[in-house]
Amino acid sequence: MSVRIVEVGPRDGLQNEATPIPLATKVAFIERLLSAGLSEIEATSFVSPKWVPQLADAADLWPLLPAGGLYSALVPNERGLDRALDLGVDRIAVFTAASDAFTTKNIGMSIAESFEVFARVIDRFRGTYPQGFVRGYVSTAFECPYAGRIEPSKTVEVASRLIELGCDEVSIGDTIGVAAPTEVRRLTPILKDAIPVDRIAYHFHDTRGTAIANVAEALEHGVRSFDSSAAGLGGCPYAKGAGGNLATEDLAYFLERSGLSTGLDLRLLAQASLPVLEHLGRSPSAKAQRALLSEDA
Amino acid sequence: MSVRIVEVGPRDGLQNEATPIPLATKVAFIERLLSAGLSEIEATSFVSPKWVPQLADAADLWPLLPAGGLYSALVPNERGLDRALDLGVDRIAVFTAASDAFTTKNIGMSIAESFEVFARVIDRFRGTYPQGFVRGYVSTAFECPYAGRIEPSKTVEVASRLIELGCDEVSIGDTIGVAAPTEVRRLTPILKDAIPVDRIAYHFHDTRGTAIANVAEALEHGVRSFDSSAAGLGGCPYAKGAGGNLATEDLAYFLERSGLSTGLDLRLLAQASLPVLEHLGRSPSAKAQRALLSEDA
Repeated sequence: MSVRIVEVGPRDGLQNEATPIPLATKVAFIERLLSAGLSEIEATSFVSPKWVPQLADAADLWPLLPAGGLYSALVPNERGLDRALDLGVDRIAVFTAASDAFTTKNIGMSIAESFEVFARVIDRFRGTYPQGFVRGYVSTAFECPYAGRIEPSKTVEVASRLIELGCDEVSIGDTIGVAAPTEVRRLTPILKDAIPVDRIAYHFHDTRGTAIANVAEALEHGVRSFDSSAAGLGGCPYAKGAGGNLATEDLAYFLERSGLSTGLDLRLLAQASLPVLEHLGRSPSAKAQRALLSEDA
Repeated sequence: MSVRIVEVGPRDGLQNEATPIPLATKVAFIERLLSAGLSEIEATSFVSPKWVPQLADAADLWPLLPAGGLYSALVPNERGLDRALDLGVDRIAVFTAASDAFTTKNIGMSIAESFEVFARVIDRFRGTYPQGFVRGYVSTAFECPYAGRIEPSKTVEVASRLIELGCDEVSIGDTIGVAAPTEVRRLTPILKDAIPVDRIAYHFHDTRGTAIANVAEALEHGVRSFDSSAAGLGGCPYAKGAGGNLATEDLAYFLERSGLSTGLDLRLLAQASLPVLEHLGRSPSAKAQRALLSEDA
């Protein structure tokens, strides 16, 4: 049995880094991810450079992406879509949340308003790429840093609406990294009642060390798609104490040791983020990454 | 439902630190652990100071332990037992492994030889403290860095022999931090066939990020006792790339979020190791600890 990993490091991992990362370093990072066996990579975001200066080079990066990958880009609005379509981007992602308090602070819209925007974005995208891929993020699916715990029914409602709007897949995010497997156990069956399981991905953060246990629980319910970020780069800038995407190395190690195939070369994976970490002056801190690099030393 | 946490930081966490830690710092650490609600604390080891210089102060530390805790000490042999009995230590632990290659390198004995030593140690201990508590560690229970994968039957055989020799409890260790929940699922039922579940503890290392998932799996099988080390201090010095005890903060956060009572004050717990970390010049690195300290900031 195999499990699908969607690598979000180049976008979600880098977007909040204050130190500008050169284009060549980003390309080297993505080349290494691809060489390690990751095929689905969220490469950048066509968001306003004013909001995310780190990804202001999206239009420069896109033509440099190495051949062989399935690259996607976050598209927050029609203006972003225009930029993406100009470059031939045929896999996009839209981003909302299960909490109005969060979308208001994060993307300046209510959830309902975000649906109105996405309806236009997805319709226009489909006009150009009828067979293109659209992913919808549901952030704060378990808890919102402003509104507290989120009822599973709310998360399911938002995820279902994204599917109705034309998303091929929803990615359900524990944005502040608080959830325990009991919560995954509560949400997932209700989610599966509304959405086919092969259109559900989980995006766990490891802020408090629970992400792998949550993946293990989701696997029990048949979910086979998970997001992660090489070296655990990134997190959520809007949530105090957050930070800590699930590291792709930890996810891949866990899956392979569990007998689930990822198609990845773990040694190459552990080295993929080194160009970025070296530029940032940081040591690898993801657990499995450190262990793998140490085995090689 | 409640879960029992055995804090091993003062012994297992500190034993391999090269920088000498002052007695007062150790006492402050233990006082804070106790204040946070941890009652069972492995405080030190009566091992030769030649082998573990960091714990050479065991006899000085013991009389300074704050009232109210259930303290235990590792006792490797009869000489260590003499020192422990002189001080009135009524909870001891002995240490062997499921791999002869590991015990040979680690404690200089085969598994069988370690049983001979422990038989004498436990008999003499029981002569002084018939109601005292003896814990038996089974290290490398899933995999040995020298001999590779360990068959569950071997781990069960060693654990059962420790119970026969008079141990009240066995602590089953993933010493190099490689195991995945599938392995816990395979071992635990066989272990429970041989040993009552309330005499089984798991000692997971988080070297590759799988420890909490392993705890979650063990809970499904009724295991209710887990070892951990505040701030994730310590690891295994004999295994390359190892290091990384499961952090008590991560364990406690996971349990409490799962609705399982630990009796701990998580905020105080996150601060407990600070005297040691400050002395070592290290920042907190355990995930839940960082998140908890950040919430307080």
